[in-house]
Amino acid sequence: MPKRRLKRVNRRHIKRDAKMPFSQGVVVGNTLYLSGHIGLDSETKRVPADIPTEVHNLLKDVRSVLKEAGMTMDDLVYVQVYCPEISLWESFNEVYRTYFKGDLPARAFVGSGKLLFDAHFEFQAIAVKS
Amino acid sequence: MPKRRLKRVNRRHIKRDAKMPFSQGVVVGNTLYLSGHIGLDSETKRVPADIPTEVHNLLKDVRSVLKEAGMTMDDLVYVQVYCPEISLWESFNEVYRTYFKGDLPARAFVGSGKLLFDAHFEFQAIAVKS
Amino acid sequence: MPKRRLKRVNRRHIKRDAKMPFSQGVVVGNTLYLSGHIGLDSETKRVPADIPTEVHNLLKDVRSVLKEAGMTMDDLVYVQVYCPEISLWESFNEVYRTYFKGDLPARAFVGSGKLLFDAHFEFQAIAVKS
Repeated sequence: MPKRRLKRVNRRHIKRDAKMPFSQGVVVGNTLYLSGHIGLDSETKRVPADIPTEVHNLLKDVRSVLKEAGMTMDDLVYVQVYCPEISLWESFNEVYRTYFKGDLPARAFVGSGKLLFDAHFEFQAIAVKS
Repeated sequence: MPKRRLKRVNRRHIKRDAKMPFSQGVVVGNTLYLSGHIGLDSETKRVPADIPTEVHNLLKDVRSVLKEAGMTMDDLVYVQVYCPEISLWESFNEVYRTYFKGDLPARAFVGSGKLLFDAHFEFQAIAVKS
Repeated sequence: MPKRRLKRVNRRHIKRDAKMPFSQGVVVGNTLYLSGHIGLDSETKRVPADIPTEVHNLLKDVRSVLKEAGMTMDDLVYVQVYCPEISLWESFNEVYRTYFKGDLPARAFVGSGKLLFDAHFEFQAIAVKS
């Protein structure tokens, strides 16, 4: 039982596909909570053959959700990258660095099991308007 | 060294078992940080044979921690589901959807390694009172 | 498009190595978002042969980042431990418990794939000044 009444905070859900069991992002006050993103090709709905293309797809998608919340990549603070082939760390980083102007967010890069769509990367994050 | 004095925020720990090295949840202001939950049978303390039952166990447990914080499932904003068999995605979703009335939270569904108790799912999340 | 102007919150990046594509931590208001930490030996830059030593290395490193933010281990609220050998759960816990004075944070202990540097543990977390 709650000991005290909690103050209500407005929230906004960013959705792309009503059939999917998640919102792309949830904005609460100054904070955006993002869903796991993978780098599917927007036409084929498959992971592209080329790793840098997959990372670009993923990060452009993340950037578009941030934009809907009035934020940029530099507002990211807490990032998880899940990757079933840990040796792809540097390939991911090469593209990742190019998406930021300022200091980079805190990040974990975690070896995972097999991901949805056989993706090489899944990316989840929290952003705070800076 | 801190550049400025940080304002203190009250917190409350939700605990179930003092011997376990974690709290089930930590409430800080309007936010609840949950521990990883798995769908053990409350009597046998094992993962049940049936997948939907495991998901129900897990989500009922999550719901009870939310309730202790004065929240509901619809207050969840940031969810991680770890699963060693990514093909269970739809089985998880079928049960998961039934626990929400409004828009669903941001979520990552991540292929993992072997989980504690050979669970098929581990669920961690952040909720904010809405 | 944002429906309303978001209030700006000051942030501070804690960095150790400008070449790495992440900050060790990002402080936003009362909250510290930490990067994934692993227990490398500070001289050899390798994972030590001994598991408890690896956990101590990791947690001392986490503690030093918390200290830079004016916080202690007891300010941690949301912890993820990724581990490719789930049977190391109790070995991790034995050391982990000794780093806290009060109630422990919410935590998920997740079976992972292979981690960077063949580490046995990667630790990411959020802390809030209490």
